[in-house]
Amino acid sequence: MIINSRRLRADFDHLGSFGATRHGGVSRPALSEPHLRARTWLRKRIQHAGLEFIVDGAGNHSGKLEQPGASKTLLLGSHLDSVVDGGRFDGALGVMAGLEVLRTLKESKVELKHNVEVIDFTDEESQLIECLGSRALVGDISEADFQDPRCGRANLEEAFARAGVTERSVLTAQRDPASIAGYLELHIEQGPFLEAREVQIGVVSGIVGLRTFRFRFLGQQAHAGTTPMADRRDAGRGAGAFLLQASDLVEAKYPGSVVTIGRLEFSPGATCIIPGQADLYLEFRSLEEERLSEIERDLLTLAEEQASRYRLSVEIQPVSSVAPAKMQPDFRRAMHEAAEELGLSHMDIPSGAGHDAQLLARITSAGMIFIPSTGGSHNPDEYARWQDCVNGANVLLGATLRTAR
Amino acid sequence: MIINSRRLRADFDHLGSFGATRHGGVSRPALSEPHLRARTWLRKRIQHAGLEFIVDGAGNHSGKLEQPGASKTLLLGSHLDSVVDGGRFDGALGVMAGLEVLRTLKESKVELKHNVEVIDFTDEESQLIECLGSRALVGDISEADFQDPRCGRANLEEAFARAGVTERSVLTAQRDPASIAGYLELHIEQGPFLEAREVQIGVVSGIVGLRTFRFRFLGQQAHAGTTPMADRRDAGRGAGAFLLQASDLVEAKYPGSVVTIGRLEFSPGATCIIPGQADLYLEFRSLEEERLSEIERDLLTLAEEQASRYRLSVEIQPVSSVAPAKMQPDFRRAMHEAAEELGLSHMDIPSGAGHDAQLLARITSAGMIFIPSTGGSHNPDEYARWQDCVNGANVLLGATLRTAR
Repeated sequence: MIINSRRLRADFDHLGSFGATRHGGVSRPALSEPHLRARTWLRKRIQHAGLEFIVDGAGNHSGKLEQPGASKTLLLGSHLDSVVDGGRFDGALGVMAGLEVLRTLKESKVELKHNVEVIDFTDEESQLIECLGSRALVGDISEADFQDPRCGRANLEEAFARAGVTERSVLTAQRDPASIAGYLELHIEQGPFLEAREVQIGVVSGIVGLRTFRFRFLGQQAHAGTTPMADRRDAGRGAGAFLLQASDLVEAKYPGSVVTIGRLEFSPGATCIIPGQADLYLEFRSLEEERLSEIERDLLTLAEEQASRYRLSVEIQPVSSVAPAKMQPDFRRAMHEAAEELGLSHMDIPSGAGHDAQLLARITSAGMIFIPSTGGSHNPDEYARWQDCVNGANVLLGATLRTAR
Repeated sequence: MIINSRRLRADFDHLGSFGATRHGGVSRPALSEPHLRARTWLRKRIQHAGLEFIVDGAGNHSGKLEQPGASKTLLLGSHLDSVVDGGRFDGALGVMAGLEVLRTLKESKVELKHNVEVIDFTDEESQLIECLGSRALVGDISEADFQDPRCGRANLEEAFARAGVTERSVLTAQRDPASIAGYLELHIEQGPFLEAREVQIGVVSGIVGLRTFRFRFLGQQAHAGTTPMADRRDAGRGAGAFLLQASDLVEAKYPGSVVTIGRLEFSPGATCIIPGQADLYLEFRSLEEERLSEIERDLLTLAEEQASRYRLSVEIQPVSSVAPAKMQPDFRRAMHEAAEELGLSHMDIPSGAGHDAQLLARITSAGMIFIPSTGGSHNPDEYARWQDCVNGANVLLGATLRTAR
């Protein structure tokens, strides 16, 4: 049994038109207008395929293939939302392939012991609240998360209103783990590993954990012309020194782990004023929980050292934390076997990116399939060859059959 | 002859109510509503004093004491605009003291060979266009300056509309140098020199020159989790390294000069995305033109080195340049004499901040008086003791009499 690659292609290409950017990517931040238009279209595609359409209180969109007498559901998930100015494959491929697997299963009339459900999670890219949809499903969200969301309270309220979601409804999206047979996800690799090794299928061994902090360096706002260099308490200089040394430290001492400073804001932010405040947002990732704690200790010490060196104070605020996740061995075996049967080369691979699978792994068995991609990710240049996308969808189908039959 | 310190105090305090911030400073960016309200009030104070009120095409506001038969005018200037969240003294003191000097001269009925004019220059703080008012007066502004102003085109258009100024009218504000007898300005020192030495009056020897650049570092926007540290082309890391080394270099190699990075913007500016672009705005200042050129050469080389080291490109764009200015020896002597006569301690002092006097020095003789201040400047904590303000106003009066009588 294989999927209909032409039908998948038509849907995938159409999806790329929602929020299309002039550079060939998409901008579909969670619950933005383009994202909601894409979801309306997905709903029609699900209904057109004769599948049951479900939307839960967190806005997660599903299509379900019911099996007579089945009490558990195998979830095939990913997400339609993107970062601002992102690419067409991240998330989108997994949802479209999941839908195609369901259509193929339905047409084949194969009998399965589990229901199978394709699910499009809300805000995997964490533009509003970190992994809102999958955290709601696993019951890892509470009212406190709504009070100071990363997007700001006003933006969250607007987004919820646009999508017809409420804080109360989000809390109803939690599912009983006993109702779930497992979770499978197909995704582009978003890195250079499979591509460089010319391997067609990656079976994810584990997903990195991630911790995010805000470092606020505080000095003395002052006139750029009248304050000698030696007398300054320049928050920007301290933040710059910390940025550079944090990167150097993690690169040298923790191979395989990464640290990123993607956001840095000087106040007041005028050319002729020495910044009195610099807010630096930092995240670091590792496959091992213990390594995350070591990195955290090192970075917090470094921040204090640099603040002291430049006569600043520093306020350190944890923003979020996601634990690393191991993928389920049976699922991994099913994926290797499915790839082998299709004559595809395959290997184990760690995931450097967080995924909804990480959350799902807390309450159920989870597995992920990667296909090669180029151009990185979270930018318009991300790209996967179409044949690799089809290969991935067929391995997803094969793993689904091995799990649910 | 001395000024009326009570009258000056009442006016100075009232001025501080326009754009007052809750931290005790003022926010009066050029041509903002609070700035325009302050100017409307200034107009009334000028007219109430029986002085001629003048507003030129650049929005500069003046009060003039005409002398029968005089063909030249001695200007006493400064500015009512402030930076965002600035202090009450920077600029404001000079205008209020100038007005008070004119009132004192008028009341004394002293005969002068020159007209005397207090002038409030538009946008000394360069929130819209670098020193808009004084540059217009000396004829150093052209239509090109309006096309890509530092505040953005839309903000400039709005500000001009609010103030009733047009691009065409700004160009009419140029004055014939032959009509000007000289320029005097009283200002707080904005630094620690006089205060630390317990000297009451600083006679400015020269004003630093200033060059401003934008450095745009360009790398590869990418996913924070899937791109190993060694494979990154992180524009933020390059900008951070440059920030730090530029500060270290100028501090070590060019004593007396300063470099400031007050504005740094990462794109796209999300925590989980490696920045593909970092825009860094840098300015440096020195009393010597040759030193400015040396620093510029060093910083441009450093930017290229750091870009290359982090596999980035860098686009370097000069934003503005102001030449250093020497103050006129006769004026300096007049100020020292005036201070001596009043029994005030006095010394020569360089100015690390740019001032309208710098522009005026291009077409006429210019001189500046500093008084001690604390709390730096361009922030709500800037402060000058009232007695020092009165001392400064009396030295301004004395220097005016020595120059114009």
